Amino acid sequence: MNAIYAGSFDPFTNGHLHVLTQACELFDKVYVAIAVNSEKSRKIDKDVMKNAIEKIIKSNKLANAEVVVLEGLTVDLAKEKNAKFLIRGLRNGTDYEYEENLAVVNSKIAGVETIYFRAGETAHISSSVVMELYNYGKDITKWVPKEVLEVLK
Amino acid sequence: MNAIYAGSFDPFTNGHLHVLTQACELFDKVYVAIAVNSEKSRKIDKDVMKNAIEKIIKSNKLANAEVVVLEGLTVDLAKEKNAKFLIRGLRNGTDYEYEENLAVVNSKIAGVETIYFRAGETAHISSSVVMELYNYGKDITKWVPKEVLEVLK
Amino acid sequence: MNAIYAGSFDPFTNGHLHVLTQACELFDKVYVAIAVNSEKSRKIDKDVMKNAIEKIIKSNKLANAEVVVLEGLTVDLAKEKNAKFLIRGLRNGTDYEYEENLAVVNSKIAGVETIYFRAGETAHISSSVVMELYNYGKDITKWVPKEVLEVLK
Amino acid sequence: MNAIYAGSFDPFTNGHLHVLTQACELFDKVYVAIAVNSEKSRKIDKDVMKNAIEKIIKSNKLANAEVVVLEGLTVDLAKEKNAKFLIRGLRNGTDYEYEENLAVVNSKIAGVETIYFRAGETAHISSSVVMELYNYGKDITKWVPKEVLEVLK
Amino acid sequence: MNAIYAGSFDPFTNGHLHVLTQACELFDKVYVAIAVNSEKSRKIDKDVMKNAIEKIIKSNKLANAEVVVLEGLTVDLAKEKNAKFLIRGLRNGTDYEYEENLAVVNSKIAGVETIYFRAGETAHISSSVVMELYNYGKDITKWVPKEVLEVLK
Amino acid sequence: MNAIYAGSFDPFTNGHLHVLTQACELFDKVYVAIAVNSEKSRKIDKDVMKNAIEKIIKSNKLANAEVVVLEGLTVDLAKEKNAKFLIRGLRNGTDYEYEENLAVVNSKIAGVETIYFRAGETAHISSSVVMELYNYGKDITKWVPKEVLEVLK
Repeated sequence: MNAIYAGSFDPFTNGHLHVLTQACELFDKVYVAIAVNSEKSRKIDKDVMKNAIEKIIKSNKLANAEVVVLEGLTVDLAKEKNAKFLIRGLRNGTDYEYEENLAVVNSKIAGVETIYFRAGETAHISSSVVMELYNYGKDITKWVPKEVLEVLK
Repeated sequence: MNAIYAGSFDPFTNGHLHVLTQACELFDKVYVAIAVNSEKSRKIDKDVMKNAIEKIIKSNKLANAEVVVLEGLTVDLAKEKNAKFLIRGLRNGTDYEYEENLAVVNSKIAGVETIYFRAGETAHISSSVVMELYNYGKDITKWVPKEVLEVLK
Repeated sequence: MNAIYAGSFDPFTNGHLHVLTQACELFDKVYVAIAVNSEKSRKIDKDVMKNAIEKIIKSNKLANAEVVVLEGLTVDLAKEKNAKFLIRGLRNGTDYEYEENLAVVNSKIAGVETIYFRAGETAHISSSVVMELYNYGKDITKWVPKEVLEVLK
Repeated sequence: MNAIYAGSFDPFTNGHLHVLTQACELFDKVYVAIAVNSEKSRKIDKDVMKNAIEKIIKSNKLANAEVVVLEGLTVDLAKEKNAKFLIRGLRNGTDYEYEENLAVVNSKIAGVETIYFRAGETAHISSSVVMELYNYGKDITKWVPKEVLEVLK
Repeated sequence: MNAIYAGSFDPFTNGHLHVLTQACELFDKVYVAIAVNSEKSRKIDKDVMKNAIEKIIKSNKLANAEVVVLEGLTVDLAKEKNAKFLIRGLRNGTDYEYEENLAVVNSKIAGVETIYFRAGETAHISSSVVMELYNYGKDITKWVPKEVLEVLK
Repeated sequence: MNAIYAGSFDPFTNGHLHVLTQACELFDKVYVAIAVNSEKSRKIDKDVMKNAIEKIIKSNKLANAEVVVLEGLTVDLAKEKNAKFLIRGLRNGTDYEYEENLAVVNSKIAGVETIYFRAGETAHISSSVVMELYNYGKDITKWVPKEVLEVLK
C-alpha cells in the first residue's frame, strides 16, 4: 500500500518528520510531495528543499520514503504512484475543517482517502512561524531537522 | 503492524465499517475492541454485538480483523496485542478536539499513537441516533450493516 | 410554507422568542414543538410550558405560531404538519456542529431541511443556566418572557 | 419578504444553487448579489457570471430570483431592495464563526438579520477548489450548473 | 485586585496548579473555589480535596491563595470576596465556547469579567481522565501534585 | 508585573480599549505594541496611530499604559520590558486556535505566557471591518474611540 504526503514543506519541520516517520511504519512506500503553487512564492527553493528532505530521509533511515516535486493535483500523483491514501498532519480543529473540505473532494474525484496523523509534540509550530523566528535570529534547532538548518545558513 | 479500533459500537454502524475496512488495508491485524464502561448501560448486549461484528467481518472478508471485548484501558489492550496505533473515526471538529485530549494521554502514558480516519459518507450518523430512529420505526438499512439489523429484530 | 421549531423549551427564553419572531415573519405557519424525552426529566411540566408559550405567542401577536407537544421524531411531526423546514437557533460553532449531525439525518431520512437563525443578543444564555440563576435568586427578567416568570413563581 | 444572497460567485456552484433554491421557496423575492471587491481580482468577469446566473435562474424556474452586481455594502443593497434578511450558506463550524462576525455587524448597523442555510450534499466544494480542479482538466460537472461550464469553455 | 478560580477540582491536577501559579503572580488574592454541585456526586470528598489543595498551596508557596467550598453561584462568591475577575483555564476551542457562554452571563448579571489562562503542558488531561487512569493502576505522578496522590491512596 | 498587548491596531477599536482597560487594572505596566509587519501595508500610518492611542490612554486615564512601535518579535520586546505576560483579546473559537499556536511558541521560545481577555460587547467587529464600514460612509462611532475618528477624517 502506497501513500502521498503532500505539503509545501517551506521548510520541512520536525512536525512533518514526526508524521512521515509514523507513515513509513504503516505504508510500503510514502511519497513526500513538495507541492509547488505558481501563485505563492516559496521562501526556500523547491529543489534545495527536495535535497534537504532526501538527506533527512537518509539520516532517519526512512528507507521507504521518496521525495518528489508536485506541480499538479495531489490526486493525479496518487494515481500515477498507485497510492490509495493521502496523509495529512493535524494540529487543531481549524486545521481539521480545512483539510476535511479537501478530503471530501479528493475522495469524490479520485477515490483517494485521507488519513490524519497527529502532528506531535513539536508540531504546534508552522513552517511560516519557524521562518519568522529564524529571520529574527532565534534558535530553531528544536523545530527543524539539522539538514534544514544547514540549508538556511 | 497491529492496531486497535476501540469504541462502544452500540451498535456498529456503516460508518464504523468504513473505518474498519480502510484500517484492514493498512494494518497486518486490526482488533475491534468493544469498550465496556461499567457506568454506562448498553442498548445491545456486548456479546450479542461481538457476535454480530464477527459476522460483519466475515461477510466483508476482512480476514485480518478480530473482535474483542475491552473492559480495561485501550492502552493496556494495545500492549497485550503488540499494537502501536489506535484508530479513531472523525466526523467533525468537535469530535477531533474530544479525541485529541485522549490521544495526548495515550501517547504519553503508553507511547501509543492515534491515527484518524474519515468516517465517510454515511457516518454522520451516530450509534445513538441510529437507535433512536430505529425505536421510532424508521428504516435504518443505509446506516447499519444487515448483521446489525438482524440483532435488533 | 410551514416550519417546525422544536426544542425542550425548559423554559422558553427570550432567545427562543427572538428566533420564533423571525420565523413567523418568513413562514405561513410555525409549529413550536415542545420535545419530550422520556429519559430526561423536565424542570417545568410540558403542559405548563405549553400554556406559557401560548400566552407568549398571544402577547407578541405571533398569529401564525402554534404550540404542540412532541413525543416522537421531529421529522414525523414535519410530515404530519406538511412542514418542509426545521428551524434551529445557533449560539456558537459547537452548537452548529451538534445541529449539523442531526440536520444531515433529517434531510436524508425525510427530505426535511434545516434553517439556522442566529439566537440574537440575549440568547447566549441557555435554558439550564436561566434555571440555575433563578434557583439562586437572581433576576432573570432580561432573559425570559414575563409569561415564563409567572410560571416559575 | 425579500432577501439578499450575496457572494463572489466566482463561479456560482451547485452548492450556491442548493441554497438559492431553498431561499426562493421561502421569500417573495431573492436578490443574488455578485459582490465585487476592488482588492480581489475575479477569475470570471462579473458580467459574464451575471449572465450565467440569469440562465441558471431561468432553467431552474426560480421565478422570484434576480441577479444584481454589488459594488457597495450588502446592507445598503438590503435597504434599497427592502430586504430584511441576508442569506448565507454554511459548510462547517469555521464558516459559521467567520459569518457570525459579519452577521453581528450587519444586525447592529442596519437591523438586517442573517439566516443560514445548509450548503447541501455537493457544497463541500468551494468556488476556488472548483476552479483549481477545472484548470487541471478534471470533470466538474457534478459541482457546477451546466450554464457555468459553458462560460468556462 | 482579587480573583476567583472556581472548579470541581475532583481532583486538582497539575494543569490547575499551572493556572493557579500564574494567577497568584497577577492578583493580590486568589480564591480557589471548590464548586459543589448537588446533582453531581464527587469522586473525592470536598473537604478532603480542600485539605489537599491547602497543602499544595503551602508547598508551592502561593501565599496569596486561599481555598473555599462554593455551594452557590460563583458571582455571589465574587461579590462577597470583592473579586472583579474570574479565572478559567483553557485546553482547546470547545472548552472556550463552553466557557464563553458562562462568561457572558457572569459579565451581564454581576459585572464580573472572565480571564482565560492557558492550561499548560500537562493540562491536556482532565480530572476525570486522571481518575480513570488511576483506577486502572496507571502512574499519574506527572499529572497531579503529590498531595493529591496521597489523598487517593 | 508588566505585560505586552501587541496588535496591528489598524485602527485601535473599542474592543481593544475594553481589553486594555482590564489589563491596566491587573498589571503594573501595560505596553501597547503597534506591530509593524513589513509584508503588510497599513491603512493608517503607525506614527499617526501611536499618537491616537496615546490620546486614548490619556482620556481614559490609563496611567500605567504606554504605546510603542514593535518592528521585531513580541517576545523580544517582552524581554526588553521585563514583561512576563502577553495579552490577547478573544472573539471566538477560531481566534483562540490561531492564538494558541503562537502562545505555545512564545512560551517555549522565551518563557512568556499568554493571557486571554474577552473582547467584550462591541468587539465582535474587527479593525478591517471597521475600516470597510467607514469607507462606505457608515457611522462607526460605537466601534472606535473618538480619537481614532479624528485621525480618519
